[in-house]
Amino acid sequence: MTTVSFRPRDGCVLGTVADSTAVQVSTTVDLATSAAPGLASARPSRRQAWLESVADALDAHRDELTRLADLETALGRTRLTGELARTAAQLRFYGRVAAEGGYLGAAIDHRTDATPRLVRINRPLGPVAVFGAGNFPFAFGMLGNDTASALAAGCPVVAKAHPAHVVTCARLAEIAEQALREAGAPPGTFGMVVGFDAGVELVGRPGVKAVGFTGSQAGGLAVWRLANERDEVIPVFAEMGTVNPVVMTPLAAASRAAEWASGFVDSFTLGDGQFCTKPGLMLAPAGHRVPRTVADALHRAGHGATMLTRGIADAVAAGLDQLRAAGAEPVGIVPGTGSGWSADTAVLAAPIDALQPGSRLLEECFGPVALVVEYDGRPELDAALARLQGSLTGTVLTGGPQDPDTAHLVATLAERVGRVTVDEWPTGVAWTWAQHHGGPWPATSAPSSTSVGAGALGRFVRPVTFQSVPDQDLPAPARAAVAVANPWAIPRRIDGVLTIP
Amino acid sequence: MTTVSFRPRDGCVLGTVADSTAVQVSTTVDLATSAAPGLASARPSRRQAWLESVADALDAHRDELTRLADLETALGRTRLTGELARTAAQLRFYGRVAAEGGYLGAAIDHRTDATPRLVRINRPLGPVAVFGAGNFPFAFGMLGNDTASALAAGCPVVAKAHPAHVVTCARLAEIAEQALREAGAPPGTFGMVVGFDAGVELVGRPGVKAVGFTGSQAGGLAVWRLANERDEVIPVFAEMGTVNPVVMTPLAAASRAAEWASGFVDSFTLGDGQFCTKPGLMLAPAGHRVPRTVADALHRAGHGATMLTRGIADAVAAGLDQLRAAGAEPVGIVPGTGSGWSADTAVLAAPIDALQPGSRLLEECFGPVALVVEYDGRPELDAALARLQGSLTGTVLTGGPQDPDTAHLVATLAERVGRVTVDEWPTGVAWTWAQHHGGPWPATSAPSSTSVGAGALGRFVRPVTFQSVPDQDLPAPARAAVAVANPWAIPRRIDGVLTIP
Repeated sequence: MTTVSFRPRDGCVLGTVADSTAVQVSTTVDLATSAAPGLASARPSRRQAWLESVADALDAHRDELTRLADLETALGRTRLTGELARTAAQLRFYGRVAAEGGYLGAAIDHRTDATPRLVRINRPLGPVAVFGAGNFPFAFGMLGNDTASALAAGCPVVAKAHPAHVVTCARLAEIAEQALREAGAPPGTFGMVVGFDAGVELVGRPGVKAVGFTGSQAGGLAVWRLANERDEVIPVFAEMGTVNPVVMTPLAAASRAAEWASGFVDSFTLGDGQFCTKPGLMLAPAGHRVPRTVADALHRAGHGATMLTRGIADAVAAGLDQLRAAGAEPVGIVPGTGSGWSADTAVLAAPIDALQPGSRLLEECFGPVALVVEYDGRPELDAALARLQGSLTGTVLTGGPQDPDTAHLVATLAERVGRVTVDEWPTGVAWTWAQHHGGPWPATSAPSSTSVGAGALGRFVRPVTFQSVPDQDLPAPARAAVAVANPWAIPRRIDGVLTIP
Repeated sequence: MTTVSFRPRDGCVLGTVADSTAVQVSTTVDLATSAAPGLASARPSRRQAWLESVADALDAHRDELTRLADLETALGRTRLTGELARTAAQLRFYGRVAAEGGYLGAAIDHRTDATPRLVRINRPLGPVAVFGAGNFPFAFGMLGNDTASALAAGCPVVAKAHPAHVVTCARLAEIAEQALREAGAPPGTFGMVVGFDAGVELVGRPGVKAVGFTGSQAGGLAVWRLANERDEVIPVFAEMGTVNPVVMTPLAAASRAAEWASGFVDSFTLGDGQFCTKPGLMLAPAGHRVPRTVADALHRAGHGATMLTRGIADAVAAGLDQLRAAGAEPVGIVPGTGSGWSADTAVLAAPIDALQPGSRLLEECFGPVALVVEYDGRPELDAALARLQGSLTGTVLTGGPQDPDTAHLVATLAERVGRVTVDEWPTGVAWTWAQHHGGPWPATSAPSSTSVGAGALGRFVRPVTFQSVPDQDLPAPARAAVAVANPWAIPRRIDGVLTIP
């Protein structure tokens, strides 16, 4: 069996990559398992050096990688060049987060008359299976946030190549393996498997201790179910598709409707709508002709879309039909070019009563498609927001700093999403310390987990407490944590008091 | 329907409590949902005051509660008096953890040329369903670690009464509800439901956002499955039964076998073996007659056991039969008294080859039953340890500070358990900052979660990031976090740098 790669612009074959056999999957996981103790005991700053080696290698192969990925994804050289630079920066960022050591959660309770000495430290879970995204071959792919944060936390990674860009994946894996080897990381620190069956096999291997997934709800839930059927159930951190609601306030509609409509079109068509943070639903006050204004903006900005895969292009067409069947009416459509994996770009409108639990209107339509729904007053708006599924993001579009509706909408959206933005589009996701990229089910399968930002390491560790273990018998990270000199220079909670190196 | 309470010492009926109807469950959850925003926006030190009010009420009702619980559980007044004092102390501890504010995970990234301002803060998940333990009516029961940490984190709690002590549960609920009301907590902050069907109904209610469970694997997995079948899947933090292996080193066997054998018996018969941290499996070096020494210690210390329920007493008898069928031989038995819910106390021995995946020998036998298995050299020991399920605890019994096997065994056990103890029995669980009471599946359903210690609050919150939200529009906790004056005096990570108030 092989995985065939196509060029989205014309549908021609770019190349093929052989699928991994079950034996190859097993061997790859075994190698990761044998690498795990070395990663776990390494000082975090050593792992930082490994990640920097991978980042440097990506920078060094920029032209080759972006050219290849553009052929395979049609995402454009400019976007892909930026995304590759971001991916290298992410690798360096997660290395810094590891070296800072806060993720270790080090805590020491000294012995008292009533309690023993306890030393707690987070240890890596072990090999992590990573299922990267189709829509970001670099930043959320083989070497994206999941892989970088898992390696930073001390977990070997076995990544499954994405069928939408399997040739790029294979090249990324080669580059990463060489860079890690040259930097002195243990063999097995990173590995790749190819093919659908290999992905299923991977999740079932006893050596795999956690899964990171970025993609569709259908794919994420399938992986989650597989993991739940194992003898040893393991955590699945699936970041899945969501509608990412946008609410325009009455003051915004009265004063800035055209500006927000134009920004909305730019945001939901960015990358041809292939963003997990794409704002797919706008709730706008009735009486301002907002659906029409958005449609006008679409026609002004509109261009044909080219999707990553034939499957996604077909799903956009099917999604439009499903939205119509669920009560939405197209108000603006820019037709696709018709060549390769082209798709229509569309804005639809629907009555607010159609937003009912179970309706297709409340689910993501991946691609350059968005829905505008008008509300009549705050009670109707609040009732609609209460019916929304969990989302990664929620956005409030205001009429300015004194908008009387902002605080209420921020608080309401915070109950249902992982990130609330005001007067900014949610599409971009900064990879910083305070970022949270997650949210309640079904935005993610684990509502407290983030797949972007410093917190991402926390998914791949678990605490272990050492009770009355003599210093010399502690594993290296715990031994470093108890040393008075704090040789790793990490934050520690000592007898309940947070102390900074 | 009613739940009937029995007196374990003689099997007579103590009383009955009416089961909650589906409508009552729904009403209780709705009330919790209506209380949630008030808890979420309250300053943590206010919630601390509510928890202290409950703690004070427990202290004030000490005689009544311990007398009632002793009739209903046969755990003894002395033990129950200590456990009640601990429960009050836990409530106060989790209040202090909340007030300290580290659990909020506050982080602020100021705006840069490339990134927006991000403010991240942990917010409570919402109403939590708590299924307390049978074996600790106070410390892990209605008002135990799960409830205390959920309330501290800002989540209303609906607790299911445990059938082994439903009368005590009902009284605890009355006391807690009154104390919370008097302290000014919103109505619905704490509620109780009664009965098996009510428990099922509770997990299925859309208003419930997380579950805390302490008990058997069968019970925990049943709750976990129910939660996974919801439209909105919610996290289940189930702390389940485990074998909690103990390893005696060759030096320990040569120098201190009798001492460790006696301690082992004391530990596995504590509370008649009804501890989730009961050490159920000892691995001892061959050639020192350790199984015989343990049996001798049992016969010296032995006393008839009285179990919490008829079901548990029956399960102990069945478990002994199953262990025999799986290849274990009794080497020491102290028969039960025969009255009420009595059970035998027993030590069994098995050949190390019998410890195979799927064997009953690798599963918990709840009650005063333990297995001793001899190993012949480190390779055989390591192979056996590698086959063990995840456990809450693992213990190394050494020959002293210079024992050459300690470090290796600590590292090995750390891969499979949540807490490693050296030369101390695992039965006691200190509720402090560095504690971790959890472990890999099936010790817990979420390997990174702890149900005891400061980390317990982390189960019941999720981060939300506010992007470019004006200060005045932030919810109260985030607004407090961004204020330069740091009015809540919490630790904050500002542009990546951890800062202490």
